[in-house]
Amino acid sequence: MRVIGFDPGLRRTGWGVVDVAGSRITHVANGVCTSGEGDLAGRLVRLHVEIERVVLEHRPDQAAVEHTFVNRDAAATLKLGQARAISLLVPAQQGIPVAEYAPNAVKKAIVGVGHADKTQVQHMVRRLLPGVGFDCADSADALAVALCHAWNAGVGSRMAKALEAAR
Amino acid sequence: MRVIGFDPGLRRTGWGVVDVAGSRITHVANGVCTSGEGDLAGRLVRLHVEIERVVLEHRPDQAAVEHTFVNRDAAATLKLGQARAISLLVPAQQGIPVAEYAPNAVKKAIVGVGHADKTQVQHMVRRLLPGVGFDCADSADALAVALCHAWNAGVGSRMAKALEAAR
Repeated sequence: MRVIGFDPGLRRTGWGVVDVAGSRITHVANGVCTSGEGDLAGRLVRLHVEIERVVLEHRPDQAAVEHTFVNRDAAATLKLGQARAISLLVPAQQGIPVAEYAPNAVKKAIVGVGHADKTQVQHMVRRLLPGVGFDCADSADALAVALCHAWNAGVGSRMAKALEAAR
Repeated sequence: MRVIGFDPGLRRTGWGVVDVAGSRITHVANGVCTSGEGDLAGRLVRLHVEIERVVLEHRPDQAAVEHTFVNRDAAATLKLGQARAISLLVPAQQGIPVAEYAPNAVKKAIVGVGHADKTQVQHMVRRLLPGVGFDCADSADALAVALCHAWNAGVGSRMAKALEAAR
């Protein structure tokens, strides 16, 4: 089973793809999709084009999107919602089931505690996917979402064991 | 020039189309697009399908979307942002320029004051587009956004005069 995870953002949406076969989880690819400059509608179109390109290239069986929301202010939350819609829309348009995970659920799945910081998450992503490289924290977060989904989708208690062993 | 206006919402996105020729503004059509039930990604896909159907049927030259955000809570704002993204995305994907207007700007354009209530807006939409019928307040708001854009896009001081005369 191939899983794509997304960490949505209007400027940068991180994505990460993993393959799961029994207890074996392999890193496939990761990166960021950007919306560029200009008016909001145009930026959303570019995000749609870039995310669609990634989904069509890697053909995941399942998708998972981080359900985060900033409380900073309403304008920032609205912006994030707009970007998030594209991460949800594109896989669903391709008939791929899309799951959503709260940041705490992702952290709990990967690190074991809901309030882990970003460096702990990145550390565990590196440990679970040996040899993985990522340029950007958003890609690492996206891989964490993909791993969380692989685990939660019941791909196996064996993965849970692998997580325990790696911790 | 044909303008489509949107009043975005996840459950119901209102839309309204007007034709502008000199000082003559004619109502073309209005309605609501709904996202149905189920998971968020699927609802966004249905909203995309319905809005795309409306845009392809009426082939507007320009689009305008109300830039509203609820301050009720972050979850509601995030939801609205997600719905809003679809209203912005669909026309932009068809190469149609998309403008955004704050609710106050729409009210000021239509009623003359920024803090007019919904019934005043509906009253003016009915007066500006004689014979128009709408089942739903969301469609009336969408028509108000379309009228606001027609006016702001500089379609003519003559329209401003028509507004003055109708007021």
